Amino acid sequence: MTAEVTGQMLIGASAVRGSRSEIFAVDPGTGETLAPGFAGGSAQDVARACTLAGEAFDVYRETTPEARAQFLETVAEAILGLGDGLIVRAMAESGLPRGRLEGERGRTVGQLRLFAKLLREGSFIEARIDPALPERQPLPRADLRQRHIALGPVVVFGASNFPLAFSVAGGDTASALAAGCPVVVKGHSAHPGTSELVGRAVQQAVNACGLPEGVFSLLFGSGSEVGIALVTDPRIKAVGFTGSRRGGLALVAAAQARPEPIPVYAEMASINPVVLLPAALSARAEALGKEFVGSLTLGAGQFCTNPGLVFALAGPDLDRFVAAAGAALQASAAATMLTPGIHAAYEAGVAQLEANANAQALARGTVGAGPHQGCAALFLTEAAALAGDHALTEEVFGASSLVVRCRDLDEVRATIAQLEGQLTATIHADAADAEAARALIPTLERKAGRILFNGWPTGVEVCDAMVHGGPFPATSDSRTTSVGTLAIRRFLRPVCYQDVPDALLPDALKRANPLGVPRRIDGTFQGAAPG
Amino acid sequence: MTAEVTGQMLIGASAVRGSRSEIFAVDPGTGETLAPGFAGGSAQDVARACTLAGEAFDVYRETTPEARAQFLETVAEAILGLGDGLIVRAMAESGLPRGRLEGERGRTVGQLRLFAKLLREGSFIEARIDPALPERQPLPRADLRQRHIALGPVVVFGASNFPLAFSVAGGDTASALAAGCPVVVKGHSAHPGTSELVGRAVQQAVNACGLPEGVFSLLFGSGSEVGIALVTDPRIKAVGFTGSRRGGLALVAAAQARPEPIPVYAEMASINPVVLLPAALSARAEALGKEFVGSLTLGAGQFCTNPGLVFALAGPDLDRFVAAAGAALQASAAATMLTPGIHAAYEAGVAQLEANANAQALARGTVGAGPHQGCAALFLTEAAALAGDHALTEEVFGASSLVVRCRDLDEVRATIAQLEGQLTATIHADAADAEAARALIPTLERKAGRILFNGWPTGVEVCDAMVHGGPFPATSDSRTTSVGTLAIRRFLRPVCYQDVPDALLPDALKRANPLGVPRRIDGTFQGAAPG
Repeated sequence: MTAEVTGQMLIGASAVRGSRSEIFAVDPGTGETLAPGFAGGSAQDVARACTLAGEAFDVYRETTPEARAQFLETVAEAILGLGDGLIVRAMAESGLPRGRLEGERGRTVGQLRLFAKLLREGSFIEARIDPALPERQPLPRADLRQRHIALGPVVVFGASNFPLAFSVAGGDTASALAAGCPVVVKGHSAHPGTSELVGRAVQQAVNACGLPEGVFSLLFGSGSEVGIALVTDPRIKAVGFTGSRRGGLALVAAAQARPEPIPVYAEMASINPVVLLPAALSARAEALGKEFVGSLTLGAGQFCTNPGLVFALAGPDLDRFVAAAGAALQASAAATMLTPGIHAAYEAGVAQLEANANAQALARGTVGAGPHQGCAALFLTEAAALAGDHALTEEVFGASSLVVRCRDLDEVRATIAQLEGQLTATIHADAADAEAARALIPTLERKAGRILFNGWPTGVEVCDAMVHGGPFPATSDSRTTSVGTLAIRRFLRPVCYQDVPDALLPDALKRANPLGVPRRIDGTFQGAAPG
Repeated sequence: MTAEVTGQMLIGASAVRGSRSEIFAVDPGTGETLAPGFAGGSAQDVARACTLAGEAFDVYRETTPEARAQFLETVAEAILGLGDGLIVRAMAESGLPRGRLEGERGRTVGQLRLFAKLLREGSFIEARIDPALPERQPLPRADLRQRHIALGPVVVFGASNFPLAFSVAGGDTASALAAGCPVVVKGHSAHPGTSELVGRAVQQAVNACGLPEGVFSLLFGSGSEVGIALVTDPRIKAVGFTGSRRGGLALVAAAQARPEPIPVYAEMASINPVVLLPAALSARAEALGKEFVGSLTLGAGQFCTNPGLVFALAGPDLDRFVAAAGAALQASAAATMLTPGIHAAYEAGVAQLEANANAQALARGTVGAGPHQGCAALFLTEAAALAGDHALTEEVFGASSLVVRCRDLDEVRATIAQLEGQLTATIHADAADAEAARALIPTLERKAGRILFNGWPTGVEVCDAMVHGGPFPATSDSRTTSVGTLAIRRFLRPVCYQDVPDALLPDALKRANPLGVPRRIDGTFQGAAPG
């Protein structure tokens, strides 16, 4: 398979050219427009993709876990089979460096394989059996069996900041396909060529595995036309999204206004508070300052888990931290941002902070040479000011952060308690900080999906224990995660079978357990078990 | 503890009289107004209950599972300790007979004890541990641990049709308290005395177990004033509701319009289709007709799982079923309905069907002597008419049902495919019907939370495998159940702990596993296991 970009959408087994105005990617490193153009999809294209997905659903959801595992592995192989052309195109469309994109490809392939492993283990079905009790008094108990089945066709919106790992075959797609849901992807307009290449890999895998063509489609077009049409199509039963608060809330509103509302898993805004406790700050203010800037400027600051707020007590140790962070930040190289629009929004956000009387500008990074390079920015404010000025806690997507000077630990805690929900919350603590940390944790648990000690929030491991989620507006549904194996649960629902004859039961619930899945029988676990 | 009804609300450890207009229960069997009056709560009462719940949250959610198990068992004992006074009051307020209410008390106590058992088993925490891999290339892996924690304070709305099992200490309250969520109940205006009695039992248990008083409050008042104020209070993080579609949707809309939207678990409308397949119908049309009427008229038809639609093929066997059902229904005694309002709505719904040219009236039950007795009603329509007439598939709460005559099995399936989401779907099938049943099941799985064979949907077992839920509008969230142990998951969310020192980890995640909970460690289960 060659990495040739044609500008077509993929609707089931077909490749079709859209009929709406053309979208062109822009190389943010040069400002150059990249060929080909991607003509946007129409209402008919949306309907066709959703019809195919709806038709594929009953067959695809009842494929065996092993069949879906092989499919996910085939997708992974097909992505690797795209070779360097994929990386080259993604570099041009995102401005991200080769090493980052090769790593992101590894993560993308790795999470497809992790879900394949989860499928083979079988606990995601959560099979439960309460056998009949015909002699029970005063009433007998029927034979009751429960499994989880796929929700239905899912729409996934590609994210700008992970053109591979949160896009066409990224985490949302992998978990939805694993659950047994056909997926219709709305490709992000910033990286349509990368999207097409990966989409062709998925399409090829659907065909190679003999699955119904409607298991996967990829559309392009405007959010207001194609995106809302997808979310409101009656065949669609759930939505995955990573992006702006405004975009996410628009999808939630559209999904709620449907005759049949559906869940939207939108990951939106997070500024990821970091607390530097006194003993840790005293012991290593300079090292913390340098590490902080490393995390802040990674990937031009374009991570959902970027550390945007740093809390510490006023005093000479904080001054040392600020001096070290300021110096590191001033030395940091400007970095090309994902799109001209993201760069412009970043500069506007920094300018607003610069004009805010409550924020003191501490440092800016080196000004870049390229047309869309963001240079890092660091500000200082007082905790008392933060509480009254919502502009200080609005996410500035990029390498901008705010140090929040506090009078005491109670003020740290009270200020964090007033923040909105977050993806992460971080504590830097030495042994002498243990009690202060202990007092903070309950507040952080209520605010965030992941709590870190003595590290930095950028870098999200794909594993069983990860939670990449958190209270609103970090996500629209704090009961879930978009990274890690628990993500499959977003696309499943329980169904109970009462006195259904064995031959008509789904395999996971048959007496002989032909799939060999772990099951909870009369309250006791049998087989390798879920979690 | 005596079963004395005072007309007070319970806010934390206090009993307070409301300041708004008084609500009086009405004995629907006699039309008589029951003393005392219950003055409705004010915005201040709502705020006080929510403040106490918010203050109790961090302490209560971190009580051990064993402590919460003992608390639930203490609630169960306290309810039994109310003695016959509870039953007598509930009979007067609901018109339900003694046997039913004694059974319902047993179910209420039983589900509290079932959640106690679930707490002791520990799998609901879903502890997962991915140990650090410091040597991993190219990057080390941090120590990552996940548990589920309580969402926050929960509002539960008492349901009219289960004054015990879906009310103050019913399923929603039991599962929320088990999860570690303080609960504020808005008592149903139809049974305030029953609500107060049970509320006092819970309040007494909170005190006896040394828990923070804010773990439980009980308010009365109008839905528009007290109900919406509760749902929109920022301390509240989830809502449980069982009732009308209009009421449920109003709560969902209020919850979505909050600055921080929250989940609402609303169980609303379901008409519970039943399919009589040809061989079963031929073999036992008369018996099925009689059984059907038994299920339809149980509890005056006031069950969420009442069989409101019966599908079968036109022909002499269906005529036999209709004749038998009609005869049984005509002989069925009228039964007192829960409230004058519910009775009036039932009669209005039946009158609408009687006036509908697409519905042929088949039979009515015996007219009752009491002021608010509903008499059962049976109608017939053609499948072709059902598709075009939404009025035929609107829930009529009470013992009214519609037989849908179909040309062939494809029409059965196609007609059911057009229905809205349901709590249950039932198939009556003999061995010769196996292939017809097999062809129907995928459609039923997409429509309903529970699929039954050769039974009737009324009667919901409280166990691990039960699903009392289903696609919209049966519930507002098909990913959950309101009955059975899986219900606890509605009130939990995952949190990940990265490199948190052992001493600061929650007990469920500490290296030594002091709680002894089952855990998934590096992908492998250890200990008794979840499901």
